[in-house]
Amino acid sequence: MKQLVAPGFAICLGLAALRCFPVSAHPQASNWRDEGVIYLDHSVNAQLHPVPIHAVHLGDGFWAQRRRVTTERSLPTMLQLLEEHGVVDNFRRLAGHPELVRKGPLYTDSDLYKWMEAAAWAVASNEPADADKQKLHGEIETLIPIISAAQEPSGYLNTYFVGEKARLRFTDLPHSHEDYCLGHLLQAGIAYYRATGDRALLSIGERFADYIVENFGPAKRPFVTGHPELEMALVELYRTTGEAKYLEFARYLFSGVERDRLKLKDSDIRYMFSGRPFTSHTELEGHAVRALYAVSGATDYFTETGDPAYKKTLDLLWTDLTMRKMYITGGVGARVAGESFGDAYELPSEQAYAETCAAVANVMWNFRLLSLTGDARYADVLERALYNGVNSGMSLSGTLYCYRNPLASAAEKLRNPWYDTDCCPPNVERLFESLPGYFYAMSRDGVYVNLYQNSALDWRLENGVGLKLAQATNYPWSGDVTLTVSPQRRSDFTLYLRWPSWAATAEIQVNHQSFAPADSKRGSYLAISRTWSPGDLVTLSLGLQSVPTVANPRVADLYGRVAMQRGPLIYTLEQMDQSGAALGDIFVRPNAQVVVDFRKDLLGGVVVLKVPGLTAEKSLGDEPLYQPLTTATNRIKRPVTLTFIPYYAIGNREPTPMEVWVPISRFDNGTSSASTGSAGGTGNSSMSASPAKMSRRSENR
Amino acid sequence: MKQLVAPGFAICLGLAALRCFPVSAHPQASNWRDEGVIYLDHSVNAQLHPVPIHAVHLGDGFWAQRRRVTTERSLPTMLQLLEEHGVVDNFRRLAGHPELVRKGPLYTDSDLYKWMEAAAWAVASNEPADADKQKLHGEIETLIPIISAAQEPSGYLNTYFVGEKARLRFTDLPHSHEDYCLGHLLQAGIAYYRATGDRALLSIGERFADYIVENFGPAKRPFVTGHPELEMALVELYRTTGEAKYLEFARYLFSGVERDRLKLKDSDIRYMFSGRPFTSHTELEGHAVRALYAVSGATDYFTETGDPAYKKTLDLLWTDLTMRKMYITGGVGARVAGESFGDAYELPSEQAYAETCAAVANVMWNFRLLSLTGDARYADVLERALYNGVNSGMSLSGTLYCYRNPLASAAEKLRNPWYDTDCCPPNVERLFESLPGYFYAMSRDGVYVNLYQNSALDWRLENGVGLKLAQATNYPWSGDVTLTVSPQRRSDFTLYLRWPSWAATAEIQVNHQSFAPADSKRGSYLAISRTWSPGDLVTLSLGLQSVPTVANPRVADLYGRVAMQRGPLIYTLEQMDQSGAALGDIFVRPNAQVVVDFRKDLLGGVVVLKVPGLTAEKSLGDEPLYQPLTTATNRIKRPVTLTFIPYYAIGNREPTPMEVWVPISRFDNGTSSASTGSAGGTGNSSMSASPAKMSRRSENR
Repeated sequence: MKQLVAPGFAICLGLAALRCFPVSAHPQASNWRDEGVIYLDHSVNAQLHPVPIHAVHLGDGFWAQRRRVTTERSLPTMLQLLEEHGVVDNFRRLAGHPELVRKGPLYTDSDLYKWMEAAAWAVASNEPADADKQKLHGEIETLIPIISAAQEPSGYLNTYFVGEKARLRFTDLPHSHEDYCLGHLLQAGIAYYRATGDRALLSIGERFADYIVENFGPAKRPFVTGHPELEMALVELYRTTGEAKYLEFARYLFSGVERDRLKLKDSDIRYMFSGRPFTSHTELEGHAVRALYAVSGATDYFTETGDPAYKKTLDLLWTDLTMRKMYITGGVGARVAGESFGDAYELPSEQAYAETCAAVANVMWNFRLLSLTGDARYADVLERALYNGVNSGMSLSGTLYCYRNPLASAAEKLRNPWYDTDCCPPNVERLFESLPGYFYAMSRDGVYVNLYQNSALDWRLENGVGLKLAQATNYPWSGDVTLTVSPQRRSDFTLYLRWPSWAATAEIQVNHQSFAPADSKRGSYLAISRTWSPGDLVTLSLGLQSVPTVANPRVADLYGRVAMQRGPLIYTLEQMDQSGAALGDIFVRPNAQVVVDFRKDLLGGVVVLKVPGLTAEKSLGDEPLYQPLTTATNRIKRPVTLTFIPYYAIGNREPTPMEVWVPISRFDNGTSSASTGSAGGTGNSSMSASPAKMSRRSENR
Repeated sequence: MKQLVAPGFAICLGLAALRCFPVSAHPQASNWRDEGVIYLDHSVNAQLHPVPIHAVHLGDGFWAQRRRVTTERSLPTMLQLLEEHGVVDNFRRLAGHPELVRKGPLYTDSDLYKWMEAAAWAVASNEPADADKQKLHGEIETLIPIISAAQEPSGYLNTYFVGEKARLRFTDLPHSHEDYCLGHLLQAGIAYYRATGDRALLSIGERFADYIVENFGPAKRPFVTGHPELEMALVELYRTTGEAKYLEFARYLFSGVERDRLKLKDSDIRYMFSGRPFTSHTELEGHAVRALYAVSGATDYFTETGDPAYKKTLDLLWTDLTMRKMYITGGVGARVAGESFGDAYELPSEQAYAETCAAVANVMWNFRLLSLTGDARYADVLERALYNGVNSGMSLSGTLYCYRNPLASAAEKLRNPWYDTDCCPPNVERLFESLPGYFYAMSRDGVYVNLYQNSALDWRLENGVGLKLAQATNYPWSGDVTLTVSPQRRSDFTLYLRWPSWAATAEIQVNHQSFAPADSKRGSYLAISRTWSPGDLVTLSLGLQSVPTVANPRVADLYGRVAMQRGPLIYTLEQMDQSGAALGDIFVRPNAQVVVDFRKDLLGGVVVLKVPGLTAEKSLGDEPLYQPLTTATNRIKRPVTLTFIPYYAIGNREPTPMEVWVPISRFDNGTSSASTGSAGGTGNSSMSASPAKMSRRSENR
């Protein structure tokens, strides 16, 4: 990674050996209309500059449908639940209603802030109906004075550490979540500012942030983020305000120098992923959400400062995540105990924690790395987590949520409308509402298409020339994408189209002529550099296959099993879709012919996969736990057709056994002839049916 | 199970609906010389009557070697460590040394009691040198007055709940371990009594037990066993003293009626495996050691009372254990969190807890079920746990112990001389020292040989006729056993020889003539009923093969893997024994030719298995976490020879990666030809070499 620097002020690292890095020059006051989910236009190390949400218009399609549910169902019901559980009253109590009793765990403030952030992004975006936008806007406007009234003159703001508990403020930073709540307040304030230009909520956050910055630091009182989150928020606050003190405080947080002054325990440091120098980390460990928020913040910090030690650490940790510690769904966090990472290759399916928040954090981190580098491998991970491990977190109805997202389950009830620790629901909501801001990004030399979705971009090249980009696709059900490129006037620039690593093939036509980009390969951006005229037509055809996928044999839980993947979607078996075969007795024949079937009636409209399998004649529940291989090989199996649905749609009917990783029948690996009636095949033909034509068809024809 | 009853007193179950079962008639005072590890001579439901330890003489061999180390190394060093950690001083403090400070967690008393029990069984047995026996005897005699002096006039005895903490006595039964410590005190007292006829330690326990029985119960103060153990001890105390009140109190404990009076939490009830009616349990859950001590005690209770509801529950739980929740090593307890059982089929290798104490408890439970029923399937599980999951718990040196016994490890340091919770080391010690009492048992119609070992029995048939039985074998390295049967005079009786379920074949000769018992099958006792004359010779030849063993496919962690088993021994790979291949990159070819090699120099003398395998050319650590099956099949592998050592010997050299369950190479399942140079075979020939002749040889010749 080349370290890019720009003229501006400098930030000094380390207390003993001062090393100063030039940092980005931000304007004193930014233009809220230009700012995306993260605002990188002045971040000199950023290769990509996310567009503002209002520049993107979503057409009908996969994410439009999810966002509509979020706006119309999730946000209203969640606000109601926050009210019912006293989360808003916790503020009202401090705003002239002392008769109210504080309710919920000490971090409930953050849940309201996250809801407000989600609502703000909805307000910022084009899709919601005017009535919905106005309602959400009005609700935020109602909440702000309540929150403001709960803020103390000093700037301190937290509904838990008040009254008798005020003396406990900042006395137990590893567990108090005061830092975490402030982080979410700032992010909500920034979102609302970027949606409306209104600084009212942002100012509340700034006052509390100023209180922290003024009172804590190397020569002041010691601080540590017990639940990292504030780091990201501080860097974004710096990007929004141009105030270097916030970036400097983020640096202080990452410096991890307060171990002694705060008497931090090793176990807490490990759990928090905080409290030691960030650049001393060599692997992901501890609480998964804490760790991924920390690395997201550190990526933000690096994007502004270019301190190479950070990039080295970030690379190491990203490799650790993607090579050893991430579920195929993009979910993260193997262990229920401590909601934590497991050891390398410890990825149990049924015992998986894979908290929805951790998958959201995975999207956030990879979005930052993608923006930093323009490297499509980060978009691959982002897309994997978004379509699967995040997407499973909210029901199709928009009112039930997964906290854990296991990859196998024995009819566990996975979804609930509310959790006492209600961090996940508004986290999915804020991501979904901000999603248009993830699809496109600008660079100095052109425009990047990160995610495929029926949508239109209406923004400008970095040279100021207006650019409209219309994208038509039925992604992720189809791999065909049509783009109409319309610069305001004929212009030279590069259109970067992502070739996802899951696609074996990618074919491009420009104005109906085949086009072969240089250096094209899976998992990269295909660069189409030319002089573009308004109305130029680009088609991209991604080879969309049903791919039996295996894990590294080092993952004990997954050896001898396959997961079905089609495009960005991971598939799963739910018991109710299987006739005459019980999960736990089922084996898959991964090389056999897969039939693809679009079921408009099912789960909001999904492509299901029909995969030949075998089932034990006699329930394996009656078989011994251990037996000689020679005896075990005599198990009698009969052929069945297995029906896979997309993983994100789990648990939307009654609780039912579920399984992503299905054992391969040992004696049916494509070389032997099993009595299944159909010959083995490669499963490698692509499916390019247009949405209208999509119907039941074999992928092998 | 036929319910056998005998004339005697009756015990009434349930408070509302009184159901009375006749219970065994015990003499008021038993004869200590007749009593085994458990004393069942008067237990009318028991099919087998374990012989007293002094009736068994061990010759050289596997267990003689382990017991020698236990007596000469483990017991002396452990007593020293108990002293160093203040465990004995905790008693001295109450015995005239108030200047001492209490040390260690609240359950340390039990560790000393367990050590004393181990020492008592050593004193009871024939093998220790006289000097060792005298020394151990003397040490017990020194400890008894110290313990006695710590006992209060009321009978209460616990070194933790004294002084200021005395007011907390019995206020937190789920966690206080007062019950648990008493249980171990009683067991130590009984062992010492059975070893010497001296009731001094037993009387201390009786006084405390009487205090409990007098003060607690349905119409008195409520009681619950927070850590079950006392149940077993009370039934054994009943067997030893004939006092029905102890059996009655055990009944009360199993009745589980104090949930309300004690305000027990559901989570505690689950964790403790106690506090609800024992007969309401349908699966093993919660803390593994607690659960297995509870079921052991319930088996004892059923053996005395014959209440059929108990047998039904015990059968259900045993099936749950052996079909769904037991490691192949006989280890138990899948989860570190709560030291608990996992869900059905949740048996992770690397994250396994498999506490040594749980494996000991597994032996204890199956010994009780075996004695109750005479069913060899219990002996199979007992032997599995004893040779593997218990045996791994103590180093070959006798001075280092495993607490966890995982089935895979990345060079973790598994063994330590001491644990702050030091329950496991003296637990292994007491089992090893009492082991001669497990080998043989008498029945009304003859004698059972439960475990094969160079040894001699010198006892009597139940009709009073003296019986000597000399057993010569090099088991477990060889499957050949020679028995010389010498009744005092010509007698009709049945010799029951166990045919372990691991042996595909079992051939018997009586006085050099082939003998085929009726109804003989694997996993049963072979009954040889005849008129025996002194010096009659019986040979048993068990087919001892290296058996690649697979788990039920429902165990996610183990699918596609094999464990090597030879006789009762489970085998494992340790990294240091593999040349040119790294664990994690290794695959086994389970159907290929296995070479058996007795290595006298290695790990105290073990048979190692040389098994053809394959190793990835490129480290799998560099491969992607997920990839299409079609890509993954192209991994290049080269042949290697894998060296397996017995599992019990893990961690006796420097810490090293270790793995019991080795992945099968998908493309080498015996049908395809891999470039390994040797053809696949069945590995099914038996090894019948005598100990002297044992050397490197192929099993396939």
